[in-house]
Amino acid sequence: MIVDSKTRLAALREKMRVQGAHLTAIGPGSHMDWLLGFHPYPDERPCLLLVAPEKETILMPVLNAEGSRGKTDIEFHAWGDADGPNVALAQAISAIGATEAKSVILDETMRADFALLLLDALTGAKHSFTDDTLGSLRMRKDAAEFSTMKMNARIADRVMQKAFAAIRLGISEAELASAIQRGFSEEGAAPEFWIVACGSNSAVPHPQSGRNLGVGDAVLIDIGGRKNGFPSDITRMAVVGHPPDGYDEIHTIVEEAVQSALMAARAGVSAKDLDAAARGVITNAGYGEFFMHRTGHGMGIDLHEPPYITATSETVLEEGMVFSIEPGIYLPGRFGIRLEEIVILREDGPEILSTLPRDVYLARG
Amino acid sequence: MIVDSKTRLAALREKMRVQGAHLTAIGPGSHMDWLLGFHPYPDERPCLLLVAPEKETILMPVLNAEGSRGKTDIEFHAWGDADGPNVALAQAISAIGATEAKSVILDETMRADFALLLLDALTGAKHSFTDDTLGSLRMRKDAAEFSTMKMNARIADRVMQKAFAAIRLGISEAELASAIQRGFSEEGAAPEFWIVACGSNSAVPHPQSGRNLGVGDAVLIDIGGRKNGFPSDITRMAVVGHPPDGYDEIHTIVEEAVQSALMAARAGVSAKDLDAAARGVITNAGYGEFFMHRTGHGMGIDLHEPPYITATSETVLEEGMVFSIEPGIYLPGRFGIRLEEIVILREDGPEILSTLPRDVYLARG
Repeated sequence: MIVDSKTRLAALREKMRVQGAHLTAIGPGSHMDWLLGFHPYPDERPCLLLVAPEKETILMPVLNAEGSRGKTDIEFHAWGDADGPNVALAQAISAIGATEAKSVILDETMRADFALLLLDALTGAKHSFTDDTLGSLRMRKDAAEFSTMKMNARIADRVMQKAFAAIRLGISEAELASAIQRGFSEEGAAPEFWIVACGSNSAVPHPQSGRNLGVGDAVLIDIGGRKNGFPSDITRMAVVGHPPDGYDEIHTIVEEAVQSALMAARAGVSAKDLDAAARGVITNAGYGEFFMHRTGHGMGIDLHEPPYITATSETVLEEGMVFSIEPGIYLPGRFGIRLEEIVILREDGPEILSTLPRDVYLARG
Repeated sequence: MIVDSKTRLAALREKMRVQGAHLTAIGPGSHMDWLLGFHPYPDERPCLLLVAPEKETILMPVLNAEGSRGKTDIEFHAWGDADGPNVALAQAISAIGATEAKSVILDETMRADFALLLLDALTGAKHSFTDDTLGSLRMRKDAAEFSTMKMNARIADRVMQKAFAAIRLGISEAELASAIQRGFSEEGAAPEFWIVACGSNSAVPHPQSGRNLGVGDAVLIDIGGRKNGFPSDITRMAVVGHPPDGYDEIHTIVEEAVQSALMAARAGVSAKDLDAAARGVITNAGYGEFFMHRTGHGMGIDLHEPPYITATSETVLEEGMVFSIEPGIYLPGRFGIRLEEIVILREDGPEILSTLPRDVYLARG
């Protein structure tokens, strides 16, 4: 991932200035990827990018220092396994003039021990998380980010088609999941997640069990892979042999909820109004209690990131934001249906990244 | 993973009693796996197992509740995307009688926002991490854990042999890494990590670059996969065509360091004395400055977990502990050599899990 670190650090500092923050601390994860284009090997050894208003530095385990050296010209404060990180951390904080920092923005995804090591080193500092600074900056995607996500969406479309082709009577959810993982690998993408749920399992949004596909089973397939630093995420439905009783009515309602959200997704609209556009269709059809999750989530370097499309989020959608629209109806003991698109918000509305129809795939029984 | 949750929760509570701790909070990760045999889908939604002296409960995102319901009979305090976790967390803390908890043990691996959400809800509470409680309990492995790790070690041995067989002049580090990932997949294991570093790249312990294998290149291969909940971890060396100048001398020194550590690894010995046994060989040979990492790390559900075999660790090794012995010498600009075994400490010394010799593999140029 190649990023313009100088510009992104400057944008972060401007957000810090507005928030009155004295220090931002970032762990070896996606926030660091966005700022620097890489992150050191993440393990139990404390590793922090520390950004103060004037200077920045990296607290770096010496074991990972050399592997990271060619990727940034930011100064490292390295520490070895024998000494531990405390002395190097104090020096790092001092070197960027942050010893008196009272308002610290923490990467919410970093390990608890990293965060508390830092807070213990800064007496009396108050913490907040990155929502209004880095999180806010990361929501709007640039052209390079979009094209990588679009490529990943096309890969996921092809893998979904391979999954459809692999469906047959008696195949297990686990076997279908393996075919999906192989599909991503064959595309040069790392399989990231693979929810395959058939029959009544599909009525559980994040199921954790395993069974074999039977005639009349609905099959919910929610998959994603990752190539060149960005993920994909798509959910489609299949049925084996013939749909279960009542399937078509529910599929149509969920499809209408997707379309309602696509119509509502415009710059200037709040996330909660977008959620309401999808949820309203399902509630009006009498199934509101069976749609028990948010309508969507942002996607970028992270599979799930802001903006979250929830019933209560006041976040105002802007051009360039990328997020999922994924309403669902889950009928306990019967079946569940979720249809998911990833969209980028354009000036005139959402552009869908996938090219795959949302129709149910009819597999031979 | 099937575990005896009741026994393990009781063991945790006994450790909490000794430490004077009022509450232990565990995120959806390996500590929870060890205690409950599973963890809910880990995402940005706060999810915590809360263990007080008399009762326990789980703060659970409603989206993940049903998928977890069949796996434990612990009561859930569920919260939905629209409401957020605060009310459910307060109710959960109250339900287990922990409202006045002043000494809290935190899962050090949980997300920073989970940990600070909890600490903000417990006025005046002091925190510590799991080193003396869960971490300590997890260090000693039982027979079922050992046999799963042994199986994984055998898988890694076969994958390493496949990697050796795939080495040829001009193949890229990335292609060799792909062969390793395929190897684990073919064994039904999830590839977990794959360090492939040739020539001067091998002189960097955790390299992050890519090049093609040339004649006279040393190739460091450090790999692991995961099946049935436990990982593997093994490092071996190969050379393409012929070894680089000075290779054999350094390989012999690293091998002697491994053997010295194997001789020293006995119950009752401290981790730092075990580190010294390996490090002494390398220092005496004049290469001390080129062995810049610890001698090893514990392994269990986590690839890296206590005990850490460092120059300063006072941890006393006990029967049943599983850890790596992996000294290395890294000569900048030339080559690096690391040889790694995973061992379990038996009454009479260490048992090596791998069956693969530590000799350098000679690949045709």
